[in-house]
Amino acid sequence: MTSPLYTASVPVLQQMLKALSDVLTKAEDHAAQKKIDPDALLQARLFPDMLPLIRQVQIAADFSKGIASRLAGAEVPSWPDTEASFADLQALITKALAHVGSFKPDQFDSSESREIVLRPGTPKEKKLMASAYLLHYGLPQFFFHVTTAYGILRHNGVEIGKRDYMGAY
Amino acid sequence: MTSPLYTASVPVLQQMLKALSDVLTKAEDHAAQKKIDPDALLQARLFPDMLPLIRQVQIAADFSKGIASRLAGAEVPSWPDTEASFADLQALITKALAHVGSFKPDQFDSSESREIVLRPGTPKEKKLMASAYLLHYGLPQFFFHVTTAYGILRHNGVEIGKRDYMGAY
Repeated sequence: MTSPLYTASVPVLQQMLKALSDVLTKAEDHAAQKKIDPDALLQARLFPDMLPLIRQVQIAADFSKGIASRLAGAEVPSWPDTEASFADLQALITKALAHVGSFKPDQFDSSESREIVLRPGTPKEKKLMASAYLLHYGLPQFFFHVTTAYGILRHNGVEIGKRDYMGAY
Repeated sequence: MTSPLYTASVPVLQQMLKALSDVLTKAEDHAAQKKIDPDALLQARLFPDMLPLIRQVQIAADFSKGIASRLAGAEVPSWPDTEASFADLQALITKALAHVGSFKPDQFDSSESREIVLRPGTPKEKKLMASAYLLHYGLPQFFFHVTTAYGILRHNGVEIGKRDYMGAY
């Protein structure tokens, strides 16, 4: 049987990242058609002390690579967060999809009993079993940022719907 | 070993529903302190054709009962969606938590190979294996509505943070 942690991570991350890519394509097309400065969407926030669209996408990509890497017992690669355009965000999602898709189910076989240490060596260090890390920490945060990216675009009038958020399942 | 479908559903739904309850308590307190009509928050939307806060909470509760019931092979109870106040939403979450918590892990043991039929008998009928139903359909939608409820409140100035969304994990 495929590891439940693989089943609950890689294919789910792939579904939502692909959907997020399509949502961003619609947002970019919307900006072009309405002659909106792309930055008006990329820098949009739901509230002044919330993060803008560009950061929501970066953090979603970040959680996807962190989840897949940690569950596979691999090093989490460091990415620079230098994206500044829709094209950059698409390239980031492509990179995240390639990274997430690089792991094989059997790399997750022994991960259930693995302990994952978040923010190691800091005052906020937290240890979680791999299953708790995925289900109670990683996925809730990943979905938070994917949904918030969608919400920012909806709030700004981009014509997308729940089906776009969901992608293919 | 506990069924992976139980592990990935009931405790996750419980975490997020409890957190949502606390978020709504803060929202109600905020309205009272700032002398805001509670309906200004309960009926708030991120865009005119999106659903208001009260519906986001109802749908989150709905997915929680649907997910737990279907995975356990139980009838999905029908709830009337008559909530109109913060107190009503708290009662709804309490009811959802009681329902979700009423299932035992061993009720999920055989659910992996179970087929789940969504919208049976309608043109939009869709069949999914239980695992795909949970991971690719139920949880993405549940998190969508919990996050959107949070986003509506943040957008309206309620002082909550990611920690409130996450709850205890």
